[in-house]
Amino acid sequence: MSRIDGRTPQQLRPVTIERGWSKHAEGSVLVSFGDTKVLCNASVTEGVPRWRKGSGEGWVTAEYAMLPRATNTRGDRESVKGRIGGRTHEISRLIGRSLRAVIDYKALGENTVVLDCDVLQADGGTRTAAITGAYVALADAIGWAQGRKLIKANRKPLTGTVSAVSVGIVDGTPLLDLRYEEDVRADTDMNVVCTGDGRFVEVQGTAEAEPFARDELGTLLDLATAGCAELADLQRKALDAALER
Amino acid sequence: MSRIDGRTPQQLRPVTIERGWSKHAEGSVLVSFGDTKVLCNASVTEGVPRWRKGSGEGWVTAEYAMLPRATNTRGDRESVKGRIGGRTHEISRLIGRSLRAVIDYKALGENTVVLDCDVLQADGGTRTAAITGAYVALADAIGWAQGRKLIKANRKPLTGTVSAVSVGIVDGTPLLDLRYEEDVRADTDMNVVCTGDGRFVEVQGTAEAEPFARDELGTLLDLATAGCAELADLQRKALDAALER
Amino acid sequence: MSRIDGRTPQQLRPVTIERGWSKHAEGSVLVSFGDTKVLCNASVTEGVPRWRKGSGEGWVTAEYAMLPRATNTRGDRESVKGRIGGRTHEISRLIGRSLRAVIDYKALGENTVVLDCDVLQADGGTRTAAITGAYVALADAIGWAQGRKLIKANRKPLTGTVSAVSVGIVDGTPLLDLRYEEDVRADTDMNVVCTGDGRFVEVQGTAEAEPFARDELGTLLDLATAGCAELADLQRKALDAALER
Amino acid sequence: MSRIDGRTPQQLRPVTIERGWSKHAEGSVLVSFGDTKVLCNASVTEGVPRWRKGSGEGWVTAEYAMLPRATNTRGDRESVKGRIGGRTHEISRLIGRSLRAVIDYKALGENTVVLDCDVLQADGGTRTAAITGAYVALADAIGWAQGRKLIKANRKPLTGTVSAVSVGIVDGTPLLDLRYEEDVRADTDMNVVCTGDGRFVEVQGTAEAEPFARDELGTLLDLATAGCAELADLQRKALDAALER
Amino acid sequence: MSRIDGRTPQQLRPVTIERGWSKHAEGSVLVSFGDTKVLCNASVTEGVPRWRKGSGEGWVTAEYAMLPRATNTRGDRESVKGRIGGRTHEISRLIGRSLRAVIDYKALGENTVVLDCDVLQADGGTRTAAITGAYVALADAIGWAQGRKLIKANRKPLTGTVSAVSVGIVDGTPLLDLRYEEDVRADTDMNVVCTGDGRFVEVQGTAEAEPFARDELGTLLDLATAGCAELADLQRKALDAALER
Amino acid sequence: MSRIDGRTPQQLRPVTIERGWSKHAEGSVLVSFGDTKVLCNASVTEGVPRWRKGSGEGWVTAEYAMLPRATNTRGDRESVKGRIGGRTHEISRLIGRSLRAVIDYKALGENTVVLDCDVLQADGGTRTAAITGAYVALADAIGWAQGRKLIKANRKPLTGTVSAVSVGIVDGTPLLDLRYEEDVRADTDMNVVCTGDGRFVEVQGTAEAEPFARDELGTLLDLATAGCAELADLQRKALDAALER
Repeated sequence: MSRIDGRTPQQLRPVTIERGWSKHAEGSVLVSFGDTKVLCNASVTEGVPRWRKGSGEGWVTAEYAMLPRATNTRGDRESVKGRIGGRTHEISRLIGRSLRAVIDYKALGENTVVLDCDVLQADGGTRTAAITGAYVALADAIGWAQGRKLIKANRKPLTGTVSAVSVGIVDGTPLLDLRYEEDVRADTDMNVVCTGDGRFVEVQGTAEAEPFARDELGTLLDLATAGCAELADLQRKALDAALER
Repeated sequence: MSRIDGRTPQQLRPVTIERGWSKHAEGSVLVSFGDTKVLCNASVTEGVPRWRKGSGEGWVTAEYAMLPRATNTRGDRESVKGRIGGRTHEISRLIGRSLRAVIDYKALGENTVVLDCDVLQADGGTRTAAITGAYVALADAIGWAQGRKLIKANRKPLTGTVSAVSVGIVDGTPLLDLRYEEDVRADTDMNVVCTGDGRFVEVQGTAEAEPFARDELGTLLDLATAGCAELADLQRKALDAALER
Repeated sequence: MSRIDGRTPQQLRPVTIERGWSKHAEGSVLVSFGDTKVLCNASVTEGVPRWRKGSGEGWVTAEYAMLPRATNTRGDRESVKGRIGGRTHEISRLIGRSLRAVIDYKALGENTVVLDCDVLQADGGTRTAAITGAYVALADAIGWAQGRKLIKANRKPLTGTVSAVSVGIVDGTPLLDLRYEEDVRADTDMNVVCTGDGRFVEVQGTAEAEPFARDELGTLLDLATAGCAELADLQRKALDAALER
Repeated sequence: MSRIDGRTPQQLRPVTIERGWSKHAEGSVLVSFGDTKVLCNASVTEGVPRWRKGSGEGWVTAEYAMLPRATNTRGDRESVKGRIGGRTHEISRLIGRSLRAVIDYKALGENTVVLDCDVLQADGGTRTAAITGAYVALADAIGWAQGRKLIKANRKPLTGTVSAVSVGIVDGTPLLDLRYEEDVRADTDMNVVCTGDGRFVEVQGTAEAEPFARDELGTLLDLATAGCAELADLQRKALDAALER
Repeated sequence: MSRIDGRTPQQLRPVTIERGWSKHAEGSVLVSFGDTKVLCNASVTEGVPRWRKGSGEGWVTAEYAMLPRATNTRGDRESVKGRIGGRTHEISRLIGRSLRAVIDYKALGENTVVLDCDVLQADGGTRTAAITGAYVALADAIGWAQGRKLIKANRKPLTGTVSAVSVGIVDGTPLLDLRYEEDVRADTDMNVVCTGDGRFVEVQGTAEAEPFARDELGTLLDLATAGCAELADLQRKALDAALER
Repeated sequence: MSRIDGRTPQQLRPVTIERGWSKHAEGSVLVSFGDTKVLCNASVTEGVPRWRKGSGEGWVTAEYAMLPRATNTRGDRESVKGRIGGRTHEISRLIGRSLRAVIDYKALGENTVVLDCDVLQADGGTRTAAITGAYVALADAIGWAQGRKLIKANRKPLTGTVSAVSVGIVDGTPLLDLRYEEDVRADTDMNVVCTGDGRFVEVQGTAEAEPFARDELGTLLDLATAGCAELADLQRKALDAALER
């Protein structure tokens, strides 16, 4: 089977990770998975939320949002509606949990990092692109904080790396990294978040049309694990380059 | 290892499914998984949301909520706070998707069923108890609608059954149907929604502390599949009994 | 005149007061007035709202709500609407005032008790059932607090008992404890809250159709006073039983 | 006993009813009970809320609010807080019910009258002043609508008149029309709404400190009935004068 | 050209400034520009918002609102809608900035003055009437605070006076102080806020239909400057009179 | 005087106007004024708001927002706060008015164009950059609509061009196009919106510290008019280039 954009089923879209995109944020990454573009800004503040004060431990959280015209038809702004939708909540929480999976709170000290993931253009896989980009922004923010002595230089707040990818079964074929048109037609849709050592942080599989069987789940996890490893490699390469601020 | 309440790792808590709990709802089930008690009320209305009008197809949706003192310490009411939290949104959406997985919209006709799942007492696994109970309430509501000729008698709006259970790894041991104390200590926490024929509708696994490996995922899915099958059996038995309205 | 359910005009519906309904709350009562069922949970917390700090006095407040399908047709959730309706506000305030009428704030000390009254099933008289049940939950919560030494054993935070009942004029006949069908047809509707010694805490009479005369008001108050006395007796009996937690 | 302002216990404060206060509203009354000043504007619109369409019947509703500095210390605006408080809701509903008690919906035809009662200066009894003034504004609005043929000239949408006053027991003495300083010190506080023929539309008595006995209730109702009759007289005199628009 | 109400193009409407309108506020002015009536209440509180604490400097802010029936057709209450509209926000901010332009924060000391400007009746120019009246209320509030020694007697928190007026081009003719009917027909609409010495605090010109040229802008500023000077004179006269509280 | 970035007082920052930035929007421009970057997306929909239906006329409106970390310190999301701030409202309205000043509603037909102006990075002048970029996005959207025959080819919905710039007096020197650091130090701050023929659409001048005199206003308007002309030239050049979609 040939995919819309000519990819093989196991192939990621072209992925770019542009560090230092915004001059204000302590970590700022514009990540793209094909036409999906997400701006991931990491903000470091000294101190932690009230319920964590005095613990000596830090905190990492995330907020996800879409620009109104990131999608094919314009969506109403959540600020105008006065309430955040369920999907936004769900994805914000997923990103936060995914990043916290590789954080050593003690090593972070009583500092908070907020990751703002704003989708500038959407074409499927916005949450997985956000996680993948946010990890790099988080790493840069931690580097910045160590440069400023907010975090001690000999501490390692990051216990590993984290990346994410979507997989799904479209017309009976398991595919990696779905574009919007593929996502819409998928019978099963799964988002998988992995650490750099190939273990799982989150596995969220949903039957869109037909329930899926155990072996289909296995095939999808294989695809996703390989995709996440490839993304981890791209993250590493991006972080190896020097960052000019 | 012996569990807090003496169960084996593969054992469900005592499960009860009480139909016809409220006199008003078209389907009304009080489901309990041990000390977790959820009231699942199904409301049938003729007609569908605007975006579906004229399609000849029905709709099923769900809303989940907790009473303020369902938990050990009182939580603020979301109605008083004026906004619904992310967790509430996430679970409401999960319940709705799970039930829609076994619905034939055409057979349902232009009718809407809303499932209200209100947690009266919480002790872990509220979302899985809600899905398991809501399925039974939904079946009763559809029966009611067929009795009233809202749905044609020869139609089968339900294409299967659906039940759900939580699994997790606590102190290295995979456990079925976690109580609150177990849930808090779990390294990995997974909610699994299965159809009666053993396929998956939703698989949501989260690493709470350590990322989890592929074989751990496999063990948890085995546990969950067996648990869901047992719950499907209990659902069937509950529905086999006559319902006095 | 014979009432729908065969009661005499002066007769209460069957009333049950089930203590210890929820395992989490410090006081937990499921009260039913016929088909009206209200879960009244009392939550004790040390400390008082800011405006009362340092006064040495406690505080008691209440929140009333209905499950969406407590009624014959489903109502939208106030949490989803993002605002609390006037009726909810009004009843929450009434319950709070009624309970505070029998509280000695000094004896309570700087503790707060919140009464959550959630209507699980409605058939008229939900606010009066809520007050009657909430008083028992409050008594249990105070007992719990004295057991924990939060309140000194020799203090008596409760200066009396409080119960409530609705009365109304239906087709010219004054009736006690209206069911929903009666309430809808009532010309005059009155909610009366009494202390155990037969005095009034609240008298709220409303002309639904025709204004009412002084002697009609008198007849209704007679009915209500007798009904409240009967309820006070049931409260006492319920509290006399041992409570297993 | 001499009252703060030298009144006898049975004496109203000086009451003024100024019609035609605003040039825009179909009925506009500035009512004052002593230092309490409420602007009551009646707005007439053709048509009724959706749930009443096609019934041939009209609707009357009310909204009550206070300017932030109507009181001795500034209160936050409800528009800024983003939510309406319970007290505001409660009083708005009371005013609406009170006016509807003297409305013949059929005679009103499918027209809606909204009464806006905005407290410009508060010194106790704002809700009773609002009801008393709103009745006059309503009468003017109905006259306006009949002049415009929105309501047929031979119809009588008003079936009677309505006025309201507060009464209370202060230091053991029953007093009519409480000022703020008296209200604060009252043991029992009652708002009574009467029709012009001396019957009751609403009786809302609240024990602020001590529960009250049946005979105290009787004394308060006597006081209130006399006060309402006096107010009805003032309303009639105000309406007898010619209104220049 | 003769204006609707017979004024010349350079003529203000009759302006009244009534001090001490409300008995509660520290400064209270009912200002009218023709049929536009705005109640301006100034509330003084010791202390400043958190971000200003310890600075030794005070703060002045304003809130503007309209009664629902201040206008020709009734508008929904912002408190009922649950959100403040853009126009309200914009005008509140304009009033606050205008008053702060003549405040010496140091001389004010750590005190806050809130100006509530509530439009009781609107006929064009509500924001300029509000600024003009609010200045007088502010002056009275400061006088009150100096009388109470909240502000030292030898300090001068007011560095000047401020007044405001609208101007516009209607059918090619520049007009001062537009009434509503004129405002609706204006091609260009400008609000100008001046200090007593004739300098500008705010200039807000908007092309409603046709863009305006530099010389038209000049003509409008001439008109506005003269109008503001006249208003400054009226403010001075009002403040020269003794204020009975 | 030399400016921070070496510009002369009369010099704009480097301005770029990148068309076709997003693939989804009918008009999409990333505009930058130095480090200020605003994404302006124009969305075309057939039909108009209800109040305009059947008029044969179109509508243009705008929404402005900032990403949380567009600024030097992170701001809370308005969607999370549940309300839009006054500044956001004010700027959204300004952008909408500015664009409507060059729209022929009849020629637009019953179509609506919404301009979303999202600030990705802020360094002063975000509203003027937004207007300048939004005009170009609007022109592209109208071109798209004419290509789709939504607007007749022989119609000219745009009656002119519109651009905007900020000016201010810093340390006594009038400066064009203020950066954030300059804006903070400005005594007077003015935003000016001009049409391509040099007339004014909006003039908004604010005294931040000292009131400003008539001649200072004149100097600022001179600066702004020249700056707008330069921007109009850049807009024309950008639009002259072919747009690849």
